[in-house]
Amino acid sequence: MRLLNRIFGLFAIIWAIVPGAVLADDVSAFTLKNGLQIVVIEDHRAPVVVHMVWYRAGAADEDPGVSGIAHFLEHLMFKATDNMKSGQLSATVAANGGSDNAFTTQDYTAYFQRVAADRLDLMMTMEADRMRHLKLTEDDIRTERQVIIEERNMRIENDPGALFSEQRIAAQFLNSPYGTPVIGWKHEMEALSRADALAFYRKFYAPNDAVLVVAGDVDPARVLEMAKSHYGPLAPTPDLPERARPQEPPQTAARRLTFRDPRVAQPYVMRTYLAPERNAGDQKEAAALFLLAQLFGANSATSLLGQKLQFEKKIAVYSSAFYSDVSLDPSTFGMVVVPRDGVSLKEAEAAMDDVIAGFLKDGIDKDEFARLKMQLRADAIYGKDDVQALARRYGAALTSGLTVADVQAWPDILQAVTEDDVMQAAARVFDRRHSVTGWLEKPLFQEVTQ
Amino acid sequence: MRLLNRIFGLFAIIWAIVPGAVLADDVSAFTLKNGLQIVVIEDHRAPVVVHMVWYRAGAADEDPGVSGIAHFLEHLMFKATDNMKSGQLSATVAANGGSDNAFTTQDYTAYFQRVAADRLDLMMTMEADRMRHLKLTEDDIRTERQVIIEERNMRIENDPGALFSEQRIAAQFLNSPYGTPVIGWKHEMEALSRADALAFYRKFYAPNDAVLVVAGDVDPARVLEMAKSHYGPLAPTPDLPERARPQEPPQTAARRLTFRDPRVAQPYVMRTYLAPERNAGDQKEAAALFLLAQLFGANSATSLLGQKLQFEKKIAVYSSAFYSDVSLDPSTFGMVVVPRDGVSLKEAEAAMDDVIAGFLKDGIDKDEFARLKMQLRADAIYGKDDVQALARRYGAALTSGLTVADVQAWPDILQAVTEDDVMQAAARVFDRRHSVTGWLEKPLFQEVTQ
Repeated sequence: MRLLNRIFGLFAIIWAIVPGAVLADDVSAFTLKNGLQIVVIEDHRAPVVVHMVWYRAGAADEDPGVSGIAHFLEHLMFKATDNMKSGQLSATVAANGGSDNAFTTQDYTAYFQRVAADRLDLMMTMEADRMRHLKLTEDDIRTERQVIIEERNMRIENDPGALFSEQRIAAQFLNSPYGTPVIGWKHEMEALSRADALAFYRKFYAPNDAVLVVAGDVDPARVLEMAKSHYGPLAPTPDLPERARPQEPPQTAARRLTFRDPRVAQPYVMRTYLAPERNAGDQKEAAALFLLAQLFGANSATSLLGQKLQFEKKIAVYSSAFYSDVSLDPSTFGMVVVPRDGVSLKEAEAAMDDVIAGFLKDGIDKDEFARLKMQLRADAIYGKDDVQALARRYGAALTSGLTVADVQAWPDILQAVTEDDVMQAAARVFDRRHSVTGWLEKPLFQEVTQ
Repeated sequence: MRLLNRIFGLFAIIWAIVPGAVLADDVSAFTLKNGLQIVVIEDHRAPVVVHMVWYRAGAADEDPGVSGIAHFLEHLMFKATDNMKSGQLSATVAANGGSDNAFTTQDYTAYFQRVAADRLDLMMTMEADRMRHLKLTEDDIRTERQVIIEERNMRIENDPGALFSEQRIAAQFLNSPYGTPVIGWKHEMEALSRADALAFYRKFYAPNDAVLVVAGDVDPARVLEMAKSHYGPLAPTPDLPERARPQEPPQTAARRLTFRDPRVAQPYVMRTYLAPERNAGDQKEAAALFLLAQLFGANSATSLLGQKLQFEKKIAVYSSAFYSDVSLDPSTFGMVVVPRDGVSLKEAEAAMDDVIAGFLKDGIDKDEFARLKMQLRADAIYGKDDVQALARRYGAALTSGLTVADVQAWPDILQAVTEDDVMQAAARVFDRRHSVTGWLEKPLFQEVTQ
């Protein structure tokens, strides 16, 4: 409890000196005639800017059979365009003292650079260029496909936990494309072609399917002018497909799976439940689930799972709860328990179920709930300090079905959640029929092939 | 054993009077210039003909999000065409003393009529007409969509076993469209539109994607002429898509699920393993699996599962093993055990696993294997008597990646399978990592919502 007191003591002080109005981010939003959405976040504490382009196209927007193409294209976007040589963008960013990167999820693909604020015009020049003028050779495909396959080998094939997750997630979603891994199934990655990459690029990479986020030491009006000059001339895609993906049927049977791998050093049990996500203008249920995840296991030591399993029963060395709130389609609420040596996964799971049952029966500790809310207020304030994280939050939200208003309303919605809201959300989400329980462990000799 | 002796005694007699050459079916095959494949099976014992058109388009060929459209279109194919009123085809068949029907599976959709042999020309006229000239109104869609939803309610929603199967099959396939039910997920069926139906129709309903099977009292040369005149003028589809569906990634984690429904009268345990299917020119592994399924549970009373679980241990009231050999993509090998009152699903499953383990250890009873082979020879001969079943066999095979030669080679391939082949196939297929084990039972009071 000492650690808790120290943390919450600190939060209380911060909270006292920062007025509530600061919670509204200093954000401007525009939309160009070609459909490009623009979000500008001002932060003048350092002469730096983060420039991001987010596409409303992720792995879950892929056609069946070409899993991994969204992420493959992310790699290929660093190849030549009509106006740049292969690798020129990253080299130019580096030569200007900046850094750049990109990432792909189920719901979006994003590209960003962080540079001195006076280099923004150059970033826009290059990013606008590759939005519409990518040139791909067969050689690019061959070499970069090898890179993503290596990436898969490193990140997935060499990691039993990642392989376990793939099988678990595939069992979680019966119809939604979320059941397919972002990086792709290996056998499909090996067949990804130039035509596949270009088809995805032409379908989704367009100003009317993108969000430009600029954050840092900038003037919104000036950013808008600059964006008009660089992104404005790009033609929108006329036949942009509606973003309506296959939805889940009723999930009516609790699923379980066991993944065994001789490389498993530390067995654990993980359970995920299908869970509603944040939706535009309708974030209350998600806010309750967000708080539920915090109560259960945001902190391995002090949350409910940690208190019960690590400290009281001493059967776990680690535990956690997690919830993906920003998601275009329904996502998951999950828990993991890593048992101590000598404690079986069966015992660990039973103990986890006891914590859930106890929570549903006993309800929420009022003091703990008050502390959590205060911590969230502090998080919202701290969050503003990290302008890059803030930019990511807007980009992710706006490519996952949310609006600027939703992002700004979120802290207040969290504060308005009652204990009763959380208990009701818990009763709804903890439905085993919507769940997958997975065990990761070493092989039992006799069961490997039977 | 008395029953067994009686059956095999009968087979032995039949076998003695029918020479081996009869096993080669009296089949002719042609292909029209527009790509229509034609199979004619002669059987002059009765003045009857079966006329079937099979499309290489089933539920597994649907786009994501429109599950059920293949089956919906099957219903809509009985509506008006440019030349027929809605319902006219079936009414005409009935007026001519015949019967007609249609069916949809994952791999094909088929339409057939059984009429007096001299009505074949009329059947071709109508079937060729609706292959290319279907007219659909919004009213057709509204009324027939209600029909398929009612069909789903009756066949699936009202049947816990069917709901259980849907969840089980969805868990079996991680990437293959076989994980989606043929009739469709209800929420997607409710949104199926005229545009969806016409898109599927235009994409797949064409002579170069169809197989015409005519069986009965006909002359092949005359059938060919007739087909040329009716089907010959139909234009092929130039952009027929390659039939390459998403394939499974490695399945590496044994899955389990429990479906609970208060309506369950008789609980049971069912396990399916991912299994290779018959492939053109490569049917040996499938033949071994076919024999394995026969040995395990073709007959509830006399097969291995029945002998061990129903008679020796007396823990089951029914058991069965099954294998889907005709399938475009990998399918499943499965078993079901229905325990006696008072025997738990856990005990039933353990007993099933004992039978598998015992089989893998002890191997095959030589006499039983010989009896089974003899029975299969008899089946092949009896099979010829049912010309409609024979026609179905060719139609299903030819729309599932097989050829006429494959169908004709199958009985000999089955006879050539050795005990060793079966044991090797068993060792490969009984890999729990590729399996889903499902329990169907009544709800346990406290576990319904947690």
